[in-house]
Amino acid sequence: MYNKSIFSPNHNNLDSRLRGNDVTRIGVIGGGQLAQMLAQAAAPLSIEVYALVDNPDCPAQHDAKLMIGDQNNPHDVKNFLSEIDVLTFEFENVNFTYLENTYTPIYPPLSALKIAQDRELEKTCFVDNAVPTTQFKITHNQAECRAAINEIGLPVVIKTCRDGYDGKGQAVIRSTSDLETKWSLFEGKRVIVENLVKFDREVSIIAVRSQKGEIAFYPLTENQHRDGILRISRAPYQNPHLQNLAEHYAAKILKSLKYVGVLAIEFFVVGEQLIANEMAPRVHNSGHWTIEGTHTSQFENHIRAVAGLPLGSTAARGYSAMVNFIGELPDVEAISALKNVHFHSYHKTARPGRKLAHATVCAESKKELENVLDLLLKL
Amino acid sequence: MYNKSIFSPNHNNLDSRLRGNDVTRIGVIGGGQLAQMLAQAAAPLSIEVYALVDNPDCPAQHDAKLMIGDQNNPHDVKNFLSEIDVLTFEFENVNFTYLENTYTPIYPPLSALKIAQDRELEKTCFVDNAVPTTQFKITHNQAECRAAINEIGLPVVIKTCRDGYDGKGQAVIRSTSDLETKWSLFEGKRVIVENLVKFDREVSIIAVRSQKGEIAFYPLTENQHRDGILRISRAPYQNPHLQNLAEHYAAKILKSLKYVGVLAIEFFVVGEQLIANEMAPRVHNSGHWTIEGTHTSQFENHIRAVAGLPLGSTAARGYSAMVNFIGELPDVEAISALKNVHFHSYHKTARPGRKLAHATVCAESKKELENVLDLLLKL
Repeated sequence: MYNKSIFSPNHNNLDSRLRGNDVTRIGVIGGGQLAQMLAQAAAPLSIEVYALVDNPDCPAQHDAKLMIGDQNNPHDVKNFLSEIDVLTFEFENVNFTYLENTYTPIYPPLSALKIAQDRELEKTCFVDNAVPTTQFKITHNQAECRAAINEIGLPVVIKTCRDGYDGKGQAVIRSTSDLETKWSLFEGKRVIVENLVKFDREVSIIAVRSQKGEIAFYPLTENQHRDGILRISRAPYQNPHLQNLAEHYAAKILKSLKYVGVLAIEFFVVGEQLIANEMAPRVHNSGHWTIEGTHTSQFENHIRAVAGLPLGSTAARGYSAMVNFIGELPDVEAISALKNVHFHSYHKTARPGRKLAHATVCAESKKELENVLDLLLKL
Repeated sequence: MYNKSIFSPNHNNLDSRLRGNDVTRIGVIGGGQLAQMLAQAAAPLSIEVYALVDNPDCPAQHDAKLMIGDQNNPHDVKNFLSEIDVLTFEFENVNFTYLENTYTPIYPPLSALKIAQDRELEKTCFVDNAVPTTQFKITHNQAECRAAINEIGLPVVIKTCRDGYDGKGQAVIRSTSDLETKWSLFEGKRVIVENLVKFDREVSIIAVRSQKGEIAFYPLTENQHRDGILRISRAPYQNPHLQNLAEHYAAKILKSLKYVGVLAIEFFVVGEQLIANEMAPRVHNSGHWTIEGTHTSQFENHIRAVAGLPLGSTAARGYSAMVNFIGELPDVEAISALKNVHFHSYHKTARPGRKLAHATVCAESKKELENVLDLLLKL
């Protein structure tokens, strides 16, 4: 009797609904909150998001068509690709093995994902494009790491070159003894040593490039982290000089990678300089405010880019601040009582350190923004 | 292998996600575009919309959990009610038979639906609340109808008291011979005869009342119809006197009906007066612009009201215009190239006279709004 968004093998019907554009089924590897919000942005455009997931109890469960499967199983990947028109991603750590010889278009290109999977390639990409970044050395064991620290000078941050996210796989080293006590996590891994930048603030830029090469940038976002996880983003961060600089750097990377889709770059602000910290070849947590804070969210523009549509406006509508709810959900009734606060639940079970939801405050002035944000943070 | 938004009989999990509020499953009778947009508004709030539909190929198919069933079958209705926390509607013509003795809360109240199902009760409700409306007479056959026309004076509009929508079940009578030629449609039906109002324009107000009795109003919307179907809505229609008047009238009706949810009232504007034409006890096509044109859409506020949450802001963000696409879909690529135009497809097969999609233009000024609207209407 129950029928949940029936899967139909006959796509002609769908195609005919989207005149002037024949991409209607976008596949995403993963079913987390980014896939969820991509699917929510795609729905009104008559574009369907299919998510390849290993567990149906995932954030995208209500918004995407789920395909249960394993990205490490060639049969599952082949089946998934046969159902979609174009493939995209919601996380970097994608297994490329079964994707390299497919006819299915993949955006952003796998080459960009490979770079983002590896901090050594990522830093090299920044350097090759003359984007200022932290001083760094790649090391392969504790002795090399110690030598690199001596060369760069304390304090430093050391990070595994692969598989790090949300502050995981990294440590700040302030003394020689720090390295000894913290080394066990890094044993046997390729490790990047970077000087610890004394920055004024952290900002990010969300950029997007279409299949036709059109490029758009969102206003800079100022980010506050807590325990390595993004806690608050405020936008627009209004500094025309830094905005221009960030757009200049992002454009170079987008063009050099023949990129299609949304790319996020995080920068340290040091005086009037931007120092690139890292990039993400996907929609990004620091861009969630764009859902209500602009006319075309990062999710919609990623969908547009991947589907071959023109990009939409990225200008800010007033002032926005996004708060992540980590480990514990707020009271929805209390949130609903705040002025112009938009709640987004990810349908996850609470667990310490887990991003469960976010809320975006929209306001006409910075003062109003901070007033409502204060109330929200007290919930 | 394919698994589409699995139905789980264990709701404890869901309930625990929505602290401070235990409504998580809202049932809607119907699966059209209004149910679709209600489900889209509910998803980020961790509220699920279940739709009772007779055909799974419906606009809500991707956004709501579908239950295939017939509202005229007591078994189907009972099963549906057992799966939901609260019931609401997307159209007026609901069969009450199996709903009157349920413990499931129903919002808006059935009494409001009964009134909206019948033009005689609707007019009486306007009169009882001292809301100005057209002069009218209820008639039961052609002779009575002719007598009523003589009393009111030509021209008049005659309408079946039940089952009319989008201009169906009504006719304009300008001469005695008109009545003869057009009567066949009305034979055997209760017919309301109304004077044909010479109006300056048509406007509507979308109002919403929460379970706690909080009331909010959206700005007046100006509506243009074509062949009896809404074609364009523009908002806000800025006239403080008429806004106050409309809010005054809507508040009286909401309170008298102990209403919960969104109520739409259409008015004719005649000079500085408002003449109520009809009302709809649901989200309304003339409120679709609120998705991007306000911070809390009519869909979200209906969900909030029905779920027992506080209401959100109804203030306009800039200027908006909504265009319905009737019978034929526009080119999505061309729409995407227009500035700040938001497309909403209903996943329907094209058919003459059918509402297939809408698009909302947002702009900072009325001039910009009209410029983009012109381009949109030329697609």
